[in-house]
Amino acid sequence: MKLVKNKGILPKGFECSGLSAGIKKSGKKDIALFYSASECVTAALVTVNKIKAAPLEVSKDIIKKGRVRAVIVNSGNANCMTGSQGFKDAASMTKFVERDMRLAPHSVIVSSTGYIGKTLPMDKIKKSVPKLVSRLNKDGLKDAASAIMTTDTFPKYASLKAVIAGKDITISGVAKGSGMIAPNLKSATMLAYIFSDARITSSAAKKAIAEAVESSFNSITVDGCMSTNDTVVFMANGKAENRIIKEGSSDFRKFSSCLKEICLELAKMIVRDGEGATKFIKINVAGSKSLSEAKRLAFSVANSNLFKCAMFGSDPNWGRIMAALGSVDSQARPEKIDVMLNKRAVVKKGAPVAVNKKGFLKSPEITVDVNLNMGKYSASVYTSDLSYGYVRINTDYN
Amino acid sequence: MKLVKNKGILPKGFECSGLSAGIKKSGKKDIALFYSASECVTAALVTVNKIKAAPLEVSKDIIKKGRVRAVIVNSGNANCMTGSQGFKDAASMTKFVERDMRLAPHSVIVSSTGYIGKTLPMDKIKKSVPKLVSRLNKDGLKDAASAIMTTDTFPKYASLKAVIAGKDITISGVAKGSGMIAPNLKSATMLAYIFSDARITSSAAKKAIAEAVESSFNSITVDGCMSTNDTVVFMANGKAENRIIKEGSSDFRKFSSCLKEICLELAKMIVRDGEGATKFIKINVAGSKSLSEAKRLAFSVANSNLFKCAMFGSDPNWGRIMAALGSVDSQARPEKIDVMLNKRAVVKKGAPVAVNKKGFLKSPEITVDVNLNMGKYSASVYTSDLSYGYVRINTDYN
Repeated sequence: MKLVKNKGILPKGFECSGLSAGIKKSGKKDIALFYSASECVTAALVTVNKIKAAPLEVSKDIIKKGRVRAVIVNSGNANCMTGSQGFKDAASMTKFVERDMRLAPHSVIVSSTGYIGKTLPMDKIKKSVPKLVSRLNKDGLKDAASAIMTTDTFPKYASLKAVIAGKDITISGVAKGSGMIAPNLKSATMLAYIFSDARITSSAAKKAIAEAVESSFNSITVDGCMSTNDTVVFMANGKAENRIIKEGSSDFRKFSSCLKEICLELAKMIVRDGEGATKFIKINVAGSKSLSEAKRLAFSVANSNLFKCAMFGSDPNWGRIMAALGSVDSQARPEKIDVMLNKRAVVKKGAPVAVNKKGFLKSPEITVDVNLNMGKYSASVYTSDLSYGYVRINTDYN
Repeated sequence: MKLVKNKGILPKGFECSGLSAGIKKSGKKDIALFYSASECVTAALVTVNKIKAAPLEVSKDIIKKGRVRAVIVNSGNANCMTGSQGFKDAASMTKFVERDMRLAPHSVIVSSTGYIGKTLPMDKIKKSVPKLVSRLNKDGLKDAASAIMTTDTFPKYASLKAVIAGKDITISGVAKGSGMIAPNLKSATMLAYIFSDARITSSAAKKAIAEAVESSFNSITVDGCMSTNDTVVFMANGKAENRIIKEGSSDFRKFSSCLKEICLELAKMIVRDGEGATKFIKINVAGSKSLSEAKRLAFSVANSNLFKCAMFGSDPNWGRIMAALGSVDSQARPEKIDVMLNKRAVVKKGAPVAVNKKGFLKSPEITVDVNLNMGKYSASVYTSDLSYGYVRINTDYN
């Protein structure tokens, strides 16, 4: 397989567009349309937050009832906590596209991201739809990726090509996210859309995306704050005409690993663009008695404000790592724990190791390796530091 | 009862002192001694963090074996993750005091707070003990409270006088804490010592302090980071010569409510002095189906970095409150939730309420009232905002 970053390659049969509808005061792009020339096998995972934005509920129904062809996404307004009007507006957005493109009912899904608690400017959105449709094109990924940004500082997209099930298959993904990032997708305001021309069964698609999300979007945190709008959508239109990918096959394993790579690439972009981020931090917890314990421990470190501030200052303050590990109910034993920072041992068997060298954490990428020396499971979590920038961005977002 | 703030009144038979032993580079006071003229009924609660500092383990043994008369506390160094040397050093600190004061074995307990992973400068500590002993006095509460500070900006102490069980009883407390504040004391680097001249049974003392801690120190958070050294110690020497306070009596209820008041006062001081804090925030969650659910929901809001940044900016961004509430697994139903900010309705039955007035969150104290409208239980949690100051203080603590 071959990962292609920063190149707006779309799989066969897909087109997209992005433009400004005037939802954002800044006049920046704020609405995007993704379109497939034929019906797609679609699998979606949404936030487990009990407060779910209207478009999530509306799209869930559509995925159940119909065969999805297109996704319309706006930024600048989350259409969350907007009462019954919010549900009507989300449904209207899908109908604008269905009508303009003469698509069957239940073939368009919708996402929104931005401020919570304001109703959408529907006139502006309605007017933008014909323009979005007329601008659909094979090279529109960058425009579309830009149109779904909120506090993001760069558009996030990646593509991958591989020979799977006898054919050249392309997987392309687009994502947004910078703050309120601690996704827990079992079924972020992180949005990600993954498109492929692969032919795949519905159950294989669901399984592959669920697995890919677990080790990517569900393994990142910027600020520990779970959003109300987090959504990952995977759509495959079968245009590659490969032999159909079924669960349990070697084709499935290959496709699944490609999907994981695209998802992880997009997830890492979100962390790199974390609000105020100056560091990209990978936390590995190994030697655990279970995968879930390893992940909980890694997240406890990743979400510690004290740890994140130390990383902003390039300060090897490993005591904060130990305190975060200890705050989790686990089978870890303090006297067995090893910790390395940028491959340098700082704690061995629970005791400090003298570190003479200074400045070894000044790198823009920091790796924290924790070994519990208790079992065979490990998990990696990705996060950013906590800087003045994060506070500035979030002090007056409105 | 009568609460006396900022006055260093000690109960009968108690004396204390505080001075600089040279542990802190700044030359500020860093060691304190609290002493009772007679043996005390003692109850202690320490952090549930799996990484526990050496003095916690050493003191636990002493409380079990002996009858406590004194507490020695240093700041500037947490004596945590210091291996077997740490345990020896903690034990030595208690012995220095026992020898100098000719006390029985197992009559002195010890606490430490500050940097994690460095061994204590025992020479400096040993030299300071005779000075601490010679300076013991009835008006030493402010000095002692100052000597246990780390990033604290003011010493924290309060006293209360009440007639209980037929006698004038005094309860005095001293505390420290500013960062790494998310205590979970079942058994906080929050330290608090509460002294009383009450005569009380050991089981009544344990019950009264456990209950008082639950609604005070266990109901605050500055940064969601649980410490390795958190400790609350309650000591009562019986010098008031009241009829002995036993569980279940009206004397117990009165004493218990006085103890809660002192603990809550000290806990609030810790939040007001939270690292970088510019706001004192009280979050009430009412209408819950259980006390534990109400507390978990209140803590979810209190620990949301996005909420805390909004409060720093006096921004009524209630969407972040809803997102934090929704991120908790609970029986709450979004469509039933009411939210008030500084007594102004912003959400009613899950829908936004137009707020025309601006600047109503510019007050230094902010109250968030959430009503789930589901049950009869409620809980209050106290926190501070997330400011540039917090990041500055924690970027290079060492």
